[in-house]
Amino acid sequence: MKRIAESTVRRLSAYLRFLEEFEAQGHQTISSGELAAQGGATSAQVRKDLSFFGSFGKRGLGYSVSALSSSLREILGLGRQWNVVIVGAGKIGAALAQYEGFRARGFNVVGVYDEDPARVGGTLDGVVVRDQRELEADIARLKPHIALIAVPAEAAQALVDRVVRSGIRAILNFAPTPLTVPEKVTLRSVNMALELEILSYALVNADD
Amino acid sequence: MKRIAESTVRRLSAYLRFLEEFEAQGHQTISSGELAAQGGATSAQVRKDLSFFGSFGKRGLGYSVSALSSSLREILGLGRQWNVVIVGAGKIGAALAQYEGFRARGFNVVGVYDEDPARVGGTLDGVVVRDQRELEADIARLKPHIALIAVPAEAAQALVDRVVRSGIRAILNFAPTPLTVPEKVTLRSVNMALELEILSYALVNADD
Repeated sequence: MKRIAESTVRRLSAYLRFLEEFEAQGHQTISSGELAAQGGATSAQVRKDLSFFGSFGKRGLGYSVSALSSSLREILGLGRQWNVVIVGAGKIGAALAQYEGFRARGFNVVGVYDEDPARVGGTLDGVVVRDQRELEADIARLKPHIALIAVPAEAAQALVDRVVRSGIRAILNFAPTPLTVPEKVTLRSVNMALELEILSYALVNADD
Repeated sequence: MKRIAESTVRRLSAYLRFLEEFEAQGHQTISSGELAAQGGATSAQVRKDLSFFGSFGKRGLGYSVSALSSSLREILGLGRQWNVVIVGAGKIGAALAQYEGFRARGFNVVGVYDEDPARVGGTLDGVVVRDQRELEADIARLKPHIALIAVPAEAAQALVDRVVRSGIRAILNFAPTPLTVPEKVTLRSVNMALELEILSYALVNADD
């Protein structure tokens, strides 16, 4: 299987978002220049990104919006449904469970887990919060593809180890701590406190 | 002012988190090797990162945990308080307004804004949601340093333009769309749908 850089996936994802907008507006073709202007890249970059996956456009005619967006969806693995479990039903976990952007792109929340008895049994957007002790049994039964980790920093690594041992191969971490996973597992992190620190660093070190 | 790479800020931020844990556990010194092991870097990388900002450690004795962490806090602009406005009081905005990790690091939410009359007047963690039309007047009065954008994709650019025109120089965007800002403004984005797409790409293209 060809490996491509994360930055490419990021641009493909941005192209897809714009193609979907174009399609909704009734456009049928798009040029690499238009895609580039929207995606913050050059025309040459767009053509290079897309050529990686085969030939799409016709010189002078541009790309078919519907053909290109369905190809991109397939490349990005969005042609299908992915089942997601959320570990942690605190403020972040609850917001994730109710995030419409996930479902719109084929990510279905099939389970939410917490260890706090006050949260277990509650409902988040139709999904009942279950006891974290059920995690392994539920993963074996529901076979989710992706786990979102939304627990405090000190609890995160142990939970990641548990979901990895249960067979999950893709993890999105919201706990503000670095985590380690085996090589076959893909781990991404969203660290809002870190993002704010990068901003505060920029503010402190601004030229004006 | 010296410009350093974002990846360096990211590591400094990770070092600080571990130093704070070490300090809480009663440790007084730490070696570059220990910091490296925790931060996912090499000892040489740690020494290089820290040397960038002056001399900290003594060969063979390690770094003073308290001196190093206070220097890192200063370098990262965390010695002070930053005022934050949140634009958008939907699920993401509400979760952000109540996120304890922000306050713990000196980020104070001074205003939350929405255009939906059903949300205006409500309270999020002690902060009253105000009408989005008050944004410019409030920024002039409260002089916040950072704006968090948590509105739908199609509304994001117009709101970013408004906060930039009002003088804000640091923006953290949660809307799933690329945004443009003038060069003097620092913009960071957290795009959860994109993170999931990177995971789904990895799952589709996994070797096993």
